[in-house]
Amino acid sequence: MAKLYVIKIGGNIIDDEKKLSSFLKAFAAIHDKKILVHGGGKLATRLAEQLNIPQQVVEGRRITDAETLKIVTMVYAGYINKNIVAQLQANNCNAIGLCGADGDSILAHKRKHAVMDYGFVGDVDAINTDLATNLLEKNITLVFAPITHDQQGQLLNTNADTIAQELAKGLSDQYEVTLVYSFEKSGVLLDINNEKSVISKIDPLYYRELRSKEKIIAGMIPKMDNAFAALDAGVNKVIIGNAQELSKLVQGTAGTTIVNE
Amino acid sequence: MAKLYVIKIGGNIIDDEKKLSSFLKAFAAIHDKKILVHGGGKLATRLAEQLNIPQQVVEGRRITDAETLKIVTMVYAGYINKNIVAQLQANNCNAIGLCGADGDSILAHKRKHAVMDYGFVGDVDAINTDLATNLLEKNITLVFAPITHDQQGQLLNTNADTIAQELAKGLSDQYEVTLVYSFEKSGVLLDINNEKSVISKIDPLYYRELRSKEKIIAGMIPKMDNAFAALDAGVNKVIIGNAQELSKLVQGTAGTTIVNE
Repeated sequence: MAKLYVIKIGGNIIDDEKKLSSFLKAFAAIHDKKILVHGGGKLATRLAEQLNIPQQVVEGRRITDAETLKIVTMVYAGYINKNIVAQLQANNCNAIGLCGADGDSILAHKRKHAVMDYGFVGDVDAINTDLATNLLEKNITLVFAPITHDQQGQLLNTNADTIAQELAKGLSDQYEVTLVYSFEKSGVLLDINNEKSVISKIDPLYYRELRSKEKIIAGMIPKMDNAFAALDAGVNKVIIGNAQELSKLVQGTAGTTIVNE
Repeated sequence: MAKLYVIKIGGNIIDDEKKLSSFLKAFAAIHDKKILVHGGGKLATRLAEQLNIPQQVVEGRRITDAETLKIVTMVYAGYINKNIVAQLQANNCNAIGLCGADGDSILAHKRKHAVMDYGFVGDVDAINTDLATNLLEKNITLVFAPITHDQQGQLLNTNADTIAQELAKGLSDQYEVTLVYSFEKSGVLLDINNEKSVISKIDPLYYRELRSKEKIIAGMIPKMDNAFAALDAGVNKVIIGNAQELSKLVQGTAGTTIVNE
């Protein structure tokens, strides 16, 4: 099977023009088939402030009212997505920018919750890989904004980590998929205060050991659980590490590699 | 050759939710291969006002400074484009939203002008039909926002009429192309005050006659000249008419059909 990299890039890189530019250069240089999934960074929050649209955050999750959905659609699927595509083209990487409505790629439903109304937040139901596979086979790189749709005409705001994971899982039938979560940390750290204490490899046994010793910080647990869920669903490996070390992450010489064996 | 419709939709329809919805229903019902090209409507202007970004218009053309480019990229390629795609999906039309950077589809350069600096306005150099043809052959409908790129990483604001015309011309080698300019008027009118005075067919001879009698209003002349240029470049026919009559326009039973014979 051909190799495919599904790479999630964190918001802090999006916010930093120079870091983004060097990341995209490294990304463009990956010879295998690849998908980039981006979040939003601070741009959407800043635009909401400028437009006096109050942003509600409950338990770390943004409540997406109609005006906020409009903003994230503009910023994520418009400004950020198209600028990334233009920069990749400048780096001789033929890319196409998509959201989940394009080619009916990512079907979601408005989140149902007994108490909370998260607004126009979408939970993913299904990945339709027809378009993605067709484009990847033509050596076109995909750039996904974290916006999905419900097939009834409604766009929905969806977590970018989830989109990366679902795409990786959905495409693992057809490709040997490596899922990369790139962010501002060097990887999963043994000592949170020491960026050099990166754990290079974690398997389920070691993960249980680390958790029982409370070595995994709370914020990392959902990422790790997602990583193992992706591996269970057919993804070959998951790598977590610093976006500024992308080439090394892809080679497996930096960051934390999570495997199922 | 298979038929292809390239349909430009005017800003006044974009601004009217009900009209847009009924237009998209009629558009989705077209069985042949199709491309929709949309402009921006008043949304971008309104957003610029809300953000206190002054809009300069010289000789009917918006000057696109860096902040305005950001706004049109957000509004055209993000909000409008993705909402149109989501609505088409709801009408069982598998669509994909693109700008000229996607798949390197539309290459442009920043407009050069001896006196004026139009800012980030792009004049089209070339259409790359590889991606479009690939998608059209899979029966995927394309929705183009009027944003192009220069292959150096710069997005550019480009006239939507021009994009429709260039796509129609570029694809006329491979398809029997009908280019439709749909707007708020019923077509080319013999009497500007009478919406029923639509001229059903115009050929070059009749056009010269109408112009010599000053029957063509000034605003329509560039549209007509563009139409004849498209026909000269291989487009099969050009139809100008009311967006609310799309099915009839496509059947040739409403609007003005411009032909080269």
